[in-house]
Amino acid sequence: MTPPRILVFDIFGTVVDWHGSIVREVSQRFPQVDADAFALAWRAGYQPAMEAVRSGGRGFVKLDVLHREILDGLLPRFGLDHLGDAERADLNRIWHRLSAWPDSVAGLTRLKSHFTICSLSNGNLGLLADMAKNAGLPWDCVLSAEVFQAYKPDPRVYLGAAGVFDAKPGEVMMVAAHHDDLAAARTCGLQTAYIERPLEFGAAHVKDVSPQPDNTWHARDLLHLADQLGC
Amino acid sequence: MTPPRILVFDIFGTVVDWHGSIVREVSQRFPQVDADAFALAWRAGYQPAMEAVRSGGRGFVKLDVLHREILDGLLPRFGLDHLGDAERADLNRIWHRLSAWPDSVAGLTRLKSHFTICSLSNGNLGLLADMAKNAGLPWDCVLSAEVFQAYKPDPRVYLGAAGVFDAKPGEVMMVAAHHDDLAAARTCGLQTAYIERPLEFGAAHVKDVSPQPDNTWHARDLLHLADQLGC
Repeated sequence: MTPPRILVFDIFGTVVDWHGSIVREVSQRFPQVDADAFALAWRAGYQPAMEAVRSGGRGFVKLDVLHREILDGLLPRFGLDHLGDAERADLNRIWHRLSAWPDSVAGLTRLKSHFTICSLSNGNLGLLADMAKNAGLPWDCVLSAEVFQAYKPDPRVYLGAAGVFDAKPGEVMMVAAHHDDLAAARTCGLQTAYIERPLEFGAAHVKDVSPQPDNTWHARDLLHLADQLGC
Repeated sequence: MTPPRILVFDIFGTVVDWHGSIVREVSQRFPQVDADAFALAWRAGYQPAMEAVRSGGRGFVKLDVLHREILDGLLPRFGLDHLGDAERADLNRIWHRLSAWPDSVAGLTRLKSHFTICSLSNGNLGLLADMAKNAGLPWDCVLSAEVFQAYKPDPRVYLGAAGVFDAKPGEVMMVAAHHDDLAAARTCGLQTAYIERPLEFGAAHVKDVSPQPDNTWHARDLLHLADQLGC
């Protein structure tokens, strides 16, 4: 297989640690709250919220809006229904300031020396730009579902990223910690790299990170991917 | 006036030297051609080509396509009609590898330490990402007419950039070497900074860079802008 020239990265769980970041901030702000359950509940609303858009039942709205709707829905369950609008808005921006996994900045920096590297996330552009600035993620270009007005695994996102660079799908490689994202990318003709993130859901919920043979590469983390790709 | 939190930059002429870059490459490839006239003719096709999109007569097509059409139209005039498709495609990608003005990387780096900095160009995303990688432009986010499917001075571009960051228009400042771009941004409520680029069209065609009082700032170059903004 010809090496790719563009690497596109899933973000939540793959490049940044959403669970750990939310647990840390929620624990600090609201010591009485089960922060692990809170983080998992917020994330659990993610796919159903996007599904309303993917199914065509709702026009495209950016992920900040969906995150806020999910948040508003779960606050009563955690005894936080008294939070006002400004505090909710600030809490919602947790997703803009998620911490990178320890290998991410160094791994991306090495990969950037050999490839064009872009985010390709369901997160919106402003979220991804704020996150990159905060965490030091050195993207060549911030790409997002928002650019293509469709959420992964809609093929328009994967093929749209290739189109941005006038690239054939096989010249692009999707990098993700989720086999379903990679399977959808593969269906569009992209190469795929799986990144093990066993602690994506926290140490109490270790994730199965077994290899699946259909992926082009399988790596422990982004440094290991850089090793394998000769960066 | 409240300081902006996001700076958006025009690119061609403001951050990169399109005229000098094209003259250098064309002179080297085709010593028999008047490279100054060639660069000016290519650029002269730019506004009319976009106008076909802006007027609604043509759906949005990215600038790479328009640049190629203009190029195909002017090659006969310069005795280069014999160039094949691959050579034309490569020549067209000059716009992806334009050189930055000498102050741009240092100026942007200083501005980035205080503000979110984004391109906001009629160039397409792939062009801008390739250019940033090649010239070392440290964008927080690459924004383009392509994202908003409209060409400046269409208000959707300026207001779209503010929308990406959930910002009020006055929280965004457009930075450009062209008063018409700044005037359109100002109409949308953005702050404006004019950058003098007297040599944008080459040393044989020095540009009037007189201040216009409606702009929020007026700077010799991006380092001078950084000085004035306290970076």
